[in-house]
Amino acid sequence: MGNNPKRAIGIFDSGIGGLTVVRELLKILPQEPIVYLGDTARVPYGNKSRETVLKFSTENVLFLLHHDVKLVIIACHTASSFALPFLERHFKHPILGVIEPGVEMALETTRSGRIGVIGTNATIGSGAYLHAFSRRNSKVKVFQARCPLFVPFVEEGYLSDPVTRQVASRYLNPLKAAGVDTLILGCTHYPLLKPMIARVMGPRITLIDSARQVALKTKEVLQSMGILSQPRNSSRPLRRFFVTDEPRHFESLSVRFLGRRVGDVAKVDVAKT
Amino acid sequence: MGNNPKRAIGIFDSGIGGLTVVRELLKILPQEPIVYLGDTARVPYGNKSRETVLKFSTENVLFLLHHDVKLVIIACHTASSFALPFLERHFKHPILGVIEPGVEMALETTRSGRIGVIGTNATIGSGAYLHAFSRRNSKVKVFQARCPLFVPFVEEGYLSDPVTRQVASRYLNPLKAAGVDTLILGCTHYPLLKPMIARVMGPRITLIDSARQVALKTKEVLQSMGILSQPRNSSRPLRRFFVTDEPRHFESLSVRFLGRRVGDVAKVDVAKT
Repeated sequence: MGNNPKRAIGIFDSGIGGLTVVRELLKILPQEPIVYLGDTARVPYGNKSRETVLKFSTENVLFLLHHDVKLVIIACHTASSFALPFLERHFKHPILGVIEPGVEMALETTRSGRIGVIGTNATIGSGAYLHAFSRRNSKVKVFQARCPLFVPFVEEGYLSDPVTRQVASRYLNPLKAAGVDTLILGCTHYPLLKPMIARVMGPRITLIDSARQVALKTKEVLQSMGILSQPRNSSRPLRRFFVTDEPRHFESLSVRFLGRRVGDVAKVDVAKT
Repeated sequence: MGNNPKRAIGIFDSGIGGLTVVRELLKILPQEPIVYLGDTARVPYGNKSRETVLKFSTENVLFLLHHDVKLVIIACHTASSFALPFLERHFKHPILGVIEPGVEMALETTRSGRIGVIGTNATIGSGAYLHAFSRRNSKVKVFQARCPLFVPFVEEGYLSDPVTRQVASRYLNPLKAAGVDTLILGCTHYPLLKPMIARVMGPRITLIDSARQVALKTKEVLQSMGILSQPRNSSRPLRRFFVTDEPRHFESLSVRFLGRRVGDVAKVDVAKT
């Protein structure tokens, strides 16, 4: 594959949520260059069909490959659910999704064997989590809940609002009643609702944030392939951010997701890559 | 222009909301053939930039022109706000947006001269309503409010939910306090929230639903151009529905917006027209 350690990690999301994965990459792999693509012109993916999400995801991967990345992370759960098997079959580069790392962590964490998963309509409807669990361990019981209003709430900054709390209770109470001891946050927007979700679920439930898990998995894969970037004394590694809609909104929201503001975001048209 | 009365009215929306305009067209112009396009693969437009909405809208108009329509209705307020002036400048066919007809009706309705407008972030931010008012009557006072969560609430069926009511109060109370006597529903999704909005605003405020106004305006334009379809005794006029994502979700939601289920919806890729 001629993969070169100096190449960047490529990462795409339907929009801005994938910055929660970038945040973890910066902690776990601070020496790696990163190319990020947010498909903000066509966001969200969570209410769209398999075929459409597959088409968009393929365009996004091609864009990242044109930027000569060494590995691709699909930071979007909907895209991971619908597109990962297809993309893995067709591209030679290693491609990581956010479903599997969360499932592995949940299986390590649970003691009761009752695991909850929350996500968009598309992610839950895809059955990707159920398949991932059944491939590994047929004994756990998985309880899923669709939380379609969580993404709009996060984007509107309703992080600790009473309205969000009411809707969260409706979405989560069935999982609580089912006695889950572990809950996978199956959408890159949801880590921002962690305090709210923790309050509704109660203190004994462990929340699994896939962002951290996929960053750890990325390190493992790069290590095993011998293509980890080596720390250098020179300048800090390149981080490039691209979006498909105009960059301002992304730049201003980036603080909420990444903990710091991203500047110099460039607009691209991936449909024409 | 060689415009033929037998040709269809073309109508596009970012998604399904434009069916509220189709519903009015069926009442006011029952003899007209209709070609509808919902850009469901890229919905919503309300949180995207002028440039992106302009690009998508142009692709949508080209798709409709390929279907040989005699007039185009932009049923989406965001697209009307951002794209109508450009499209009017460049295309010969008559193109109607949903901003102007609502503004005209509001000016006829108001007695206090205090008018409210609600819409998506993009529609309100565009200033299109303010411009439309200032072109006509400098004396009215216009008060605007962004209601970004209304579209997700409608799409999730939260039409009379207490959560919707709380958010509606927050959005609308400043308009109520400003003493508006007329409120324009500046988004094709909002007519579905009419009972809720009416309850929050109180009985003395008139709600203007642009769907009906643009249908009346369409009749006026077709009449003045002499290209109204004539009632025929033969089969009922053709109605064709296209979407850019898979049709099932559109078909099942169509009851909510149109009052009846639309079948035989075809998927198209307008980016490749």
